[in-house]
Amino acid sequence: MPAVRLALAQINPTVGDLTGNSELIVAACAKAQAESCQIIVFPELALTGYPIEDLALSRDFLEQAETTLSLLAKQLLQAGLGNLRVIIGHPGLAQSPTSWAIGQNKASVIFDGQIQQSYAKHHLPNYSVFDEYRVFVAGNDFVGFELAGLKFSIVICEDIWQSGGPVSKISQNDVDVTLVLNGSPFEMQKTDTRLALVQGLAASQNTAVCYLNLVGGQDDLVFDGNSFVVDATGKEVARAKQFESELLIVEIENKTAIRSITQIASPLSQLQQVWNALVLGTRDYVEKNGFGSVILGLSGGIDSAVCASIAVDALGPDRVFGVAMPSKYSSLHSLADAKELSENTGLNYRIESIEKYFTEFEKTLALEGLAAENLQARIRAVILMALSNKEGHLLLTTGNKTELAVGYSTIYGDSAGGFAPIKDVEKTLVWALAAYRNQLAVSLGQKPPIPESSITKPPSAELRPNQKDQDSLPDYEILDRILSGLIENRSSKAELLSAGFDGAMLDTVIDLVRKAEWKRRQGAIGPRITKLAFGRERRYPITNSPS
Amino acid sequence: MPAVRLALAQINPTVGDLTGNSELIVAACAKAQAESCQIIVFPELALTGYPIEDLALSRDFLEQAETTLSLLAKQLLQAGLGNLRVIIGHPGLAQSPTSWAIGQNKASVIFDGQIQQSYAKHHLPNYSVFDEYRVFVAGNDFVGFELAGLKFSIVICEDIWQSGGPVSKISQNDVDVTLVLNGSPFEMQKTDTRLALVQGLAASQNTAVCYLNLVGGQDDLVFDGNSFVVDATGKEVARAKQFESELLIVEIENKTAIRSITQIASPLSQLQQVWNALVLGTRDYVEKNGFGSVILGLSGGIDSAVCASIAVDALGPDRVFGVAMPSKYSSLHSLADAKELSENTGLNYRIESIEKYFTEFEKTLALEGLAAENLQARIRAVILMALSNKEGHLLLTTGNKTELAVGYSTIYGDSAGGFAPIKDVEKTLVWALAAYRNQLAVSLGQKPPIPESSITKPPSAELRPNQKDQDSLPDYEILDRILSGLIENRSSKAELLSAGFDGAMLDTVIDLVRKAEWKRRQGAIGPRITKLAFGRERRYPITNSPS
Repeated sequence: MPAVRLALAQINPTVGDLTGNSELIVAACAKAQAESCQIIVFPELALTGYPIEDLALSRDFLEQAETTLSLLAKQLLQAGLGNLRVIIGHPGLAQSPTSWAIGQNKASVIFDGQIQQSYAKHHLPNYSVFDEYRVFVAGNDFVGFELAGLKFSIVICEDIWQSGGPVSKISQNDVDVTLVLNGSPFEMQKTDTRLALVQGLAASQNTAVCYLNLVGGQDDLVFDGNSFVVDATGKEVARAKQFESELLIVEIENKTAIRSITQIASPLSQLQQVWNALVLGTRDYVEKNGFGSVILGLSGGIDSAVCASIAVDALGPDRVFGVAMPSKYSSLHSLADAKELSENTGLNYRIESIEKYFTEFEKTLALEGLAAENLQARIRAVILMALSNKEGHLLLTTGNKTELAVGYSTIYGDSAGGFAPIKDVEKTLVWALAAYRNQLAVSLGQKPPIPESSITKPPSAELRPNQKDQDSLPDYEILDRILSGLIENRSSKAELLSAGFDGAMLDTVIDLVRKAEWKRRQGAIGPRITKLAFGRERRYPITNSPS
Repeated sequence: MPAVRLALAQINPTVGDLTGNSELIVAACAKAQAESCQIIVFPELALTGYPIEDLALSRDFLEQAETTLSLLAKQLLQAGLGNLRVIIGHPGLAQSPTSWAIGQNKASVIFDGQIQQSYAKHHLPNYSVFDEYRVFVAGNDFVGFELAGLKFSIVICEDIWQSGGPVSKISQNDVDVTLVLNGSPFEMQKTDTRLALVQGLAASQNTAVCYLNLVGGQDDLVFDGNSFVVDATGKEVARAKQFESELLIVEIENKTAIRSITQIASPLSQLQQVWNALVLGTRDYVEKNGFGSVILGLSGGIDSAVCASIAVDALGPDRVFGVAMPSKYSSLHSLADAKELSENTGLNYRIESIEKYFTEFEKTLALEGLAAENLQARIRAVILMALSNKEGHLLLTTGNKTELAVGYSTIYGDSAGGFAPIKDVEKTLVWALAAYRNQLAVSLGQKPPIPESSITKPPSAELRPNQKDQDSLPDYEILDRILSGLIENRSSKAELLSAGFDGAMLDTVIDLVRKAEWKRRQGAIGPRITKLAFGRERRYPITNSPS
């Protein structure tokens, strides 16, 4: 029996763009056939993009997806790709709706211009960022097919993360190769988790497994690709690149004899992964929403410097516009640092002083203290949004996760913006990323983008004379550890006390986090990189008064 | 057999405030005992407030709730209330957690200082505003008890909205009276829906039903109370007030002989219901979050006039601060209308011109067109937030649902604010509410709050000379009907075409709604009054590019 050539199409679709996604799919099929593949697999909901959220509650949208799928089958046939077996993730109408959902998260097999079989996702994740029990009806049937003497089965993402369901029938159906279509968002440490999970599946069901993931940014989620294949012994035999589109091709002789035709991608370091996730998430938000350029305020501090560097890596310096907006409280080195950053990166740079506006508002309204501090940040937002409206840039907001957690920002001021590149990056990780990115530049013989002074100076909002972040916040090393406990691990105060943190400090931080909920609720979205970001996966009441 | 006296405690708890809620509960129990009741029922999650959202994923929070419940049982005994049978909704730890949820939505029976029985909600709603499958583990057991020869059973809210589960065992257990603990948010037309549902339950399970609902605002939800009792023939025999706390007491001889001890509340008109919902939602957001006062911009237009009147009804005129902020594009009558509103209502009024700031920004940044229009709205936000920071007021934002839908607002401008009283009220309903409120004043012999001119003049943002809303939007009568179709009924374009709407206009509106998603995502919360408000129940991707 000759070996089967199988392609895993790690593509980057756009939610809602059925035509554009179809074109991506046809192009990948043509390439796979040119590489002598008999079968090609596309990720979860590749036809519509993922996640589609409440679009799945629209009959109209589901019907459009089904129509597009049928049309795609015809297009493939007409393009001479009818002999390729094409497995595609797409939503469709459920035969038996529930009282709230009408659609299913499906995968269909296209061959010879026809939709031959369809599988519907069984386990509907409804935790973390996922709301699939809300919008989909569960399927329950095992789906498999034979090709050149090999038995294949199809499952979708969550089906392998929970026990029971069609996955439990793989071994009794003598499946050689299980195809898993995923829409699995990036999280630090997740590569190892996925591999262990898939190896467990290979062992328990005696099957080779092709794990195919989407790539690309979709609002706050970054899909990292990173698709891979293990044989039935659990050995990893192929790996696609992380954060890039790729057609990964393997040759399958039998479930324990599989070899990669494409080059096996090397693993990235943790910081490299996070940086690339932020760059991809930012780029795709800008591109998929049709923006030509971005604008951001440059304070000379570490947060805006890192955001600017991410934007430059994502879009190139010509599409990034930085504005320094000094006040009387800005130190001289702040302006120098902002200028150095712009020179290092080549971004478009200008200076707009806020002083005359500030004096006018402050005097007329008789402001002092916090009101006067916030005023400065809000004048800057007025300037940035005016330039955004006038010149068509997307405004980036530069707040980090630590600030968002404790509410250390001015709403309608520095929090203003359509996208927040480092909103899920805690302050200590911002510093580590800056060091990583500069080191990368050095290793490539390039100029490090981020001014050394922005990394080493004590952080300050510079909204009053000689202000330092640590005047009102615990040391960032300690604060970030407390916040990881509270937010990402949902630790209780008692647990954090026994981990050695100070009780009064814990009370302060817990209270700050609670009181900042209303501000976070009005914040921009930004790429998620941790196992629990602020956003759709942390749903806390604003009105919440602990006794 | 003597009749049983039963109290339904329609209370207004605060999410998270276990101590305060316990005090409310003890007080209601004391009153019920004083009224010779043997049994008292509290609503769904009365102990913690509802909904608790992801607080249900915190082991700490669930343990605190359980500890508080045990303590409450002791407190009731010590207060001489041990002979009262007390049924309370509260969250608790599940015996068998899922891989994502650890808690249950429960109801427990307290008697003689002990927790005697517990029921766990079976059907976990996970549609609309509800995420309970996300945060709770389903219960599966029928729970009943006997008292003075009558059999009672306990179920919770969604259990009666879906088929199957413990509710289906009511009749086989010969239940006389079913106690339904609810956290059912107000929606227009919902009173009738609930009654029909409960009458259906009475008929199918041959039981009297006590339907008890929470009252009060919790973030975007307004619980309207409106509790009622039907006997086993389906006849409504008791009804509590809508939007007010009340202890409703009935005397039960048997399942077909029940009489109300408390006065039966009269139904409110539709407009009266909506107005009261907005007032209660606004008041509770202010009070439960500890604000002393609110501030808002007064443009002389209908939206700010209605918001100001709602705030005055909620808090009294002394706690409401209105600011007129005229520009060179403001008409003379705008300022006159704002002043008249303040005189009619007695709210605190001041004028802050934006002209000098506007001229400075406009000139320095060389702004014109949309950028200059938005600038005016953003300067007003800077002023209002400065006064909010300086004087401690909560800023109300006055946008209506129609504006939010089509993005007809300036982000970080007029959309700035912590609470949006009319965010779920479409423009045509805003006018109707104004007429209703003025008419109410007339019928009470008071001065109508809203200036007639604010109601009758053509709506305008007054951001450029002679601007009218209808220069860039369809007529509001038509626009609101299209939007109701698109948003609340999830109608397709095809359906709206066949309903007679113009195709080009539909395309324009559909596109506007899609493109405003990012702005809505950063908007303030506000009271929900329709079956589909913008907020947690409409989860659409921002990045969404239809072909």
